[in-house]
Amino acid sequence: MRKVKVFKPILVSNKERAAENRKVFDRLGAFVVNIIASPGAGKTSFISKVVTGLQKRHKILVIEGDIRGQVDSERLALLGVDVVQINTQTACHLDAFMIAQVLPQVHGSYDLILVENVGNLVCPAEFEIGEDYKLAILSVTEGDDKPYKYPLLFHLAQVVVINKTDLLPYVDFNMAKARTGILQENPHAVVLPVSSKNGEGYDAVIEHFSKEMHAAKKAH
Amino acid sequence: MRKVKVFKPILVSNKERAAENRKVFDRLGAFVVNIIASPGAGKTSFISKVVTGLQKRHKILVIEGDIRGQVDSERLALLGVDVVQINTQTACHLDAFMIAQVLPQVHGSYDLILVENVGNLVCPAEFEIGEDYKLAILSVTEGDDKPYKYPLLFHLAQVVVINKTDLLPYVDFNMAKARTGILQENPHAVVLPVSSKNGEGYDAVIEHFSKEMHAAKKAH
Repeated sequence: MRKVKVFKPILVSNKERAAENRKVFDRLGAFVVNIIASPGAGKTSFISKVVTGLQKRHKILVIEGDIRGQVDSERLALLGVDVVQINTQTACHLDAFMIAQVLPQVHGSYDLILVENVGNLVCPAEFEIGEDYKLAILSVTEGDDKPYKYPLLFHLAQVVVINKTDLLPYVDFNMAKARTGILQENPHAVVLPVSSKNGEGYDAVIEHFSKEMHAAKKAH
Repeated sequence: MRKVKVFKPILVSNKERAAENRKVFDRLGAFVVNIIASPGAGKTSFISKVVTGLQKRHKILVIEGDIRGQVDSERLALLGVDVVQINTQTACHLDAFMIAQVLPQVHGSYDLILVENVGNLVCPAEFEIGEDYKLAILSVTEGDDKPYKYPLLFHLAQVVVINKTDLLPYVDFNMAKARTGILQENPHAVVLPVSSKNGEGYDAVIEHFSKEMHAAKKAH
């Protein structure tokens, strides 16, 4: 008679699972950015610009989080970048477990992994996924009060991209007030104003990522 | 010796608590609208315009949901409208229990209660609060793809306000595509384009609310 070995189910927390993901990311050699913003703030356009600016010299993977569908993934795949889609069904955020489920599909090595979280300023900030840092995108059409009203994200984000600067003449957005709110939550935040429409500010974004990837490679 | 009466804690679901809230709203005589939108879509400006347009002939209450702070409440109170603030702390939505907690502060009678939910397209759609209907606000700067990407809200919302039409010349927003997406999720949705900046479209909004309040009064 064979002995039956009963495995105990092991319940781990999101934090523990994020630490496991981190090990996988390290094996892939990747610098990982968790991109969080409101619906329509321009996450996919931002990723397109970063991919276009860096893909000649760097291997990039995009992990795309959406409640439903894969329109953003298809749009990004046209750039020739590797994309993995996660559909969260009803969840308003990506968590470490969802990332862990797709990581076995990821092979080879990557310099940069850009994770596009579900469009939402609240819940995605609460779940680590094993990232190097969180990057928030705030578009000028959303208003300069957002860092004051959604403090957790701006407290945690190491980089805040202020998008749609081409629309500044048409909206009431006080850049100084937004900056003050951001730096109040995180005095070390890097604030990068851009326009995905006319490309303004993207040189600084590309330079920022190049430096971060370089520093991460040296640290490993 | 006195007998100690031990009350059993009664656990009710959000749906059951929403039904209790509904009874309170009916006693107040109020038509209740649960307003859901992304951060920065213009919920508070929309409410200001509706209050300004209706407060001469109707008694209005605003219930303001924010993670933190009360800047929107203070802005609305300047109009002379009654406002109750709820701070959700970390929660990304209002639920029936939070509403139930503040209802004892509400006295007298109201024709219209406008509930400004937390800025988020996902979670607030999942929790009934006892409302007559959900109203979604989508701003043109967010993109015409939002009904396709956040289907639950657009499935449930009986009214969809498309805000910031003054910015249409400066953004790529296809009104027909947005409408198709909205009506695909809910063929009975009422779509109302407005600009809170120049007031365009608000006559139709005011007329809509007047009719709804009138129909609700007759039904009671």
